Amino acid sequence: MSLFKSRNRPPQEDSNDLGFGSKLNAPGERLLNQDGSFNVLRTGRWTWTPYQSIVEMPWSSFLMLMLGFYVLANFVFAILFYLIGPDQFNGVGEDSEMIKFADLFFFSAQTLTTVGYGHISPRGFWASALASMEALLGVMIFALATGLLFARFSRPKSRILFSKNALISPYHEGYAFMFRIANLRNNSIINLEAKVTMAWLEESHGKYTRKFFALPLAREKVNLFPLNWTIVHPIDENSPLYGKTNEALEKMQPEFVILISGYDETFAQNVHSKSSYTYKDLICNGKFKPMYYEEDGHTVLQLDRIDEVEVLAAENVALPK
Amino acid sequence: MSLFKSRNRPPQEDSNDLGFGSKLNAPGERLLNQDGSFNVLRTGRWTWTPYQSIVEMPWSSFLMLMLGFYVLANFVFAILFYLIGPDQFNGVGEDSEMIKFADLFFFSAQTLTTVGYGHISPRGFWASALASMEALLGVMIFALATGLLFARFSRPKSRILFSKNALISPYHEGYAFMFRIANLRNNSIINLEAKVTMAWLEESHGKYTRKFFALPLAREKVNLFPLNWTIVHPIDENSPLYGKTNEALEKMQPEFVILISGYDETFAQNVHSKSSYTYKDLICNGKFKPMYYEEDGHTVLQLDRIDEVEVLAAENVALPK
Amino acid sequence: MSLFKSRNRPPQEDSNDLGFGSKLNAPGERLLNQDGSFNVLRTGRWTWTPYQSIVEMPWSSFLMLMLGFYVLANFVFAILFYLIGPDQFNGVGEDSEMIKFADLFFFSAQTLTTVGYGHISPRGFWASALASMEALLGVMIFALATGLLFARFSRPKSRILFSKNALISPYHEGYAFMFRIANLRNNSIINLEAKVTMAWLEESHGKYTRKFFALPLAREKVNLFPLNWTIVHPIDENSPLYGKTNEALEKMQPEFVILISGYDETFAQNVHSKSSYTYKDLICNGKFKPMYYEEDGHTVLQLDRIDEVEVLAAENVALPK
Amino acid sequence: MSLFKSRNRPPQEDSNDLGFGSKLNAPGERLLNQDGSFNVLRTGRWTWTPYQSIVEMPWSSFLMLMLGFYVLANFVFAILFYLIGPDQFNGVGEDSEMIKFADLFFFSAQTLTTVGYGHISPRGFWASALASMEALLGVMIFALATGLLFARFSRPKSRILFSKNALISPYHEGYAFMFRIANLRNNSIINLEAKVTMAWLEESHGKYTRKFFALPLAREKVNLFPLNWTIVHPIDENSPLYGKTNEALEKMQPEFVILISGYDETFAQNVHSKSSYTYKDLICNGKFKPMYYEEDGHTVLQLDRIDEVEVLAAENVALPK
Repeated sequence: MSLFKSRNRPPQEDSNDLGFGSKLNAPGERLLNQDGSFNVLRTGRWTWTPYQSIVEMPWSSFLMLMLGFYVLANFVFAILFYLIGPDQFNGVGEDSEMIKFADLFFFSAQTLTTVGYGHISPRGFWASALASMEALLGVMIFALATGLLFARFSRPKSRILFSKNALISPYHEGYAFMFRIANLRNNSIINLEAKVTMAWLEESHGKYTRKFFALPLAREKVNLFPLNWTIVHPIDENSPLYGKTNEALEKMQPEFVILISGYDETFAQNVHSKSSYTYKDLICNGKFKPMYYEEDGHTVLQLDRIDEVEVLAAENVALPK
Repeated sequence: MSLFKSRNRPPQEDSNDLGFGSKLNAPGERLLNQDGSFNVLRTGRWTWTPYQSIVEMPWSSFLMLMLGFYVLANFVFAILFYLIGPDQFNGVGEDSEMIKFADLFFFSAQTLTTVGYGHISPRGFWASALASMEALLGVMIFALATGLLFARFSRPKSRILFSKNALISPYHEGYAFMFRIANLRNNSIINLEAKVTMAWLEESHGKYTRKFFALPLAREKVNLFPLNWTIVHPIDENSPLYGKTNEALEKMQPEFVILISGYDETFAQNVHSKSSYTYKDLICNGKFKPMYYEEDGHTVLQLDRIDEVEVLAAENVALPK
Repeated sequence: MSLFKSRNRPPQEDSNDLGFGSKLNAPGERLLNQDGSFNVLRTGRWTWTPYQSIVEMPWSSFLMLMLGFYVLANFVFAILFYLIGPDQFNGVGEDSEMIKFADLFFFSAQTLTTVGYGHISPRGFWASALASMEALLGVMIFALATGLLFARFSRPKSRILFSKNALISPYHEGYAFMFRIANLRNNSIINLEAKVTMAWLEESHGKYTRKFFALPLAREKVNLFPLNWTIVHPIDENSPLYGKTNEALEKMQPEFVILISGYDETFAQNVHSKSSYTYKDLICNGKFKPMYYEEDGHTVLQLDRIDEVEVLAAENVALPK
Repeated sequence: MSLFKSRNRPPQEDSNDLGFGSKLNAPGERLLNQDGSFNVLRTGRWTWTPYQSIVEMPWSSFLMLMLGFYVLANFVFAILFYLIGPDQFNGVGEDSEMIKFADLFFFSAQTLTTVGYGHISPRGFWASALASMEALLGVMIFALATGLLFARFSRPKSRILFSKNALISPYHEGYAFMFRIANLRNNSIINLEAKVTMAWLEESHGKYTRKFFALPLAREKVNLFPLNWTIVHPIDENSPLYGKTNEALEKMQPEFVILISGYDETFAQNVHSKSSYTYKDLICNGKFKPMYYEEDGHTVLQLDRIDEVEVLAAENVALPK
């Protein structure tokens, strides 16, 4: 007797959902935060991964961590040196125990950073041996600390500016969903690709399901990115936006998840950028104002004008906000 | 006269085997260890490749290697300094030879790490020259050591959690082989791809041959990986699992080799993950319990529940274990 | 009532323009500067991104920045040390205030670079504490500075030489646009790809529009790049160059934008190279002279001959310059 | 009147030649040296590119360069310090000028490496200022030197072993050209791809032309590479090897250029490997002996047996050597 029943064709899962799944999230919540991170908490397992966690923590935490570690390490070594005996060190005088301890603390700092002024120096065997170990440890630890510092500083980030709003505007003979991005830097990103997925809620018998649709774009790729790029999804009958009234749109609670990727010449690596527009970020019947002009044989790109939208006469169209 | 005979079409080799080849391994052995490494030993040639070997050795070995090298290098330099003569150094006193040697040993450590307290310092020409060389050597060697330390620390690793078991469960109108993975970290991997290959033994006249089959998946790729992902192979007539009884399955000794790859945003690099499930890791007629819920507008992902399986009523199906 | 009107097929934007857009630039201006950078200025937003800006600034600016920062940091710490009191330091003598300040300035430099001679050393608590902090800061800052220095030095750059001129020459039974490139280094780039886009102006009713056309190449890729490679666009009826007289060409103000990419084995990374030829760089009816010959079983590539062009008898053809 | 003549279809250049071109090299010379580098010399232009040149030079040259630079830099600074005056330094005694100069030389070394013992230390303003500059310079220069050292050490190299000989052997019902490769390391390379191009000479009227042909392989890719891989080109009527006698083969002077690429998990990067077999490396009617066996549930791969070939009875076939 056969264990597994048959089926004629393996059913393909819908790949439009980008990996979010259809059951996720109550109405009104976003999938992606505005900064591109997921709207998800993780529990139940220790997910501390030293490298990634330190590289991704805020700068203030990182600096506090470095400083805290430095003070703590010196404190521990000062205790060890003190246990060996302050008299085992040249330059630690006949002062109070407090001052002796402070001297050993600063001696530790001078050893850990390999400054080694030498006005305090180890005399006895164990003092010298421990100081040697601390110097080794210092070199290794500062290698990690400075490597992490540099990794944070040089981490590939795309410098792409997104327009604050997305528009639904006349385009050719129909309408289109569009937003624009600009390259913050000159001479930077090549082979830029955009992918836009619309997520929305569909009610059936009082239960909400999240639907996904990869919006076809008028252009999905540019080879060079010298100025701004308006990314356009023309709304045709296949589009989930097709024929929707303003009320219908509000009910759908659409979220437009944007993935941008390209090769950054400075980092010599691919960089990725995520963002999302929700219903509240939509402007209907608007038009982006031009953001560059010619001057002295150069093109001048005005990055501060990326959000400027001219609202067209709303003939027969209800603006969604 | 012609040297090489003809053939009508170049026969294509079966590429399902991933590169393992069909003759490999006696019954019951795995191709891949649970940690994703190959079940292979290499002999007959010196395969020490300094960078890779040091980067891949366990942390304990690495730290012992660093420490051992440090002590050895100081020992060698102490001998050379001693041969030049302890009297060629300021601060090496009229003590026993043992203490003089210890002083030179610690002087070497202070030079190698560039601490250079200076309470011991070279006086004569050869002492100074050798100390200069040691300082140069120290800078170079610690550059290697700390570079290796950081390379180990920052080595791109995917942080993907695999469910302990793989399931064979009802799926649509048929059955499917499935397992699930979760992203241990928030905001990390994009464009994740999965590839699952089944390897099994086929007996013919008492001789075992290993067969391979790339299992078609209901979905091979997700763009974003915010939560968990259940990877599903629907069992249809083309599947080597189709119509197999529990006894047949046990005889086949199936091994499911999993390759996962994706782009990690923290490392800004592609990361790869390998794993494998054997017959013993299979659960029949089970169903993964949900591992996330909604709370305060967030999705909470419970990573410790990834292994939780609800065993369904085994109507008419023999569980393989 | 429906909000968005329909359209039968989403109109695809022309992707020949590489991302430059059709409205850009007045006649006679170039899109790409000769060094491959965009002819664009950015305004209106602070686009300082520390890593990229420092990595891309000229070497002279970089060295001045390093030196300036070093002097400034020492000056600031010297002031702080002076405020704590010169008498808190061993080795700062009974000199003029000026000399005391200079001593503290140099002490700061010795601390920041972790040289730490020790002829000046901190005595009091606050002097020692501040010196410890400076040593920590010094290690961190020099990690950034040296990391940036090395990042600049090791930044992947393709070493591709472009011929000074592009030619329009007889090719098979017709004509072709061609230029040549050479690999400056032995054993370097593999899987080299070329992409050539022609941009030109078209006048209609006194208004200029920029047109773009991706020129089909006789060969778009080489696997190995041992010598030079002549990149050829055969001019057929689909080419915007087809049937143009010299005067027509001059009016079109063509610019040929070149993108080259390949994998550099030394950097173990993909490298990219951009360049552009304008109308002024065109030579009509020329022919590149061979730039290599055989000697002692080697091929000798003469890189200085890359620009050498033999002008053919201009039968019936007006040269565009 | 039209400038450029027409052609119906742009003729595609043959892309089988990998980029070598058809005119290259006299009979008997190889295109690729055995180590995978090109058999090409470059002249006529200064092709020194600091990073690549230093990373690719032999280790002995690199170490001499470092040492030479260190000695030279110290020599230059010693001269500058000497010009400022030995009396501007503490610890430079009333010795001969020679000894004073040596003291300043070693002081420079102690400053450059930031050891800074302090038994010699700058006293005057200019001495202190120059020493500060040298310390800054030392930190920067050693950053470059150690970065280069580590870049050399950690440079991604594939560790692939090629069999010494390539074989032409019976395969299915015909013959095949084959060679084998092995992975020197455990757990290393994935998605390995092979590309084999045959280059040979064809005489016509006493003039030799080099022809190229990309050999179709029975398998072009393996996903995992746990053991060895025999790369097979089955010889059918389209193959340039088809029906060739031994004498014909010798006249053709075939060279088989091999490109291997794959993703190395340790380096987390793609690695590439080039090699070539010439006529002299061919063995006819041989068969590779197996190079692994089973033991204790492991597969043991004997890397030293990669070259072992069993020569079959040469029935009716002239061996080409």
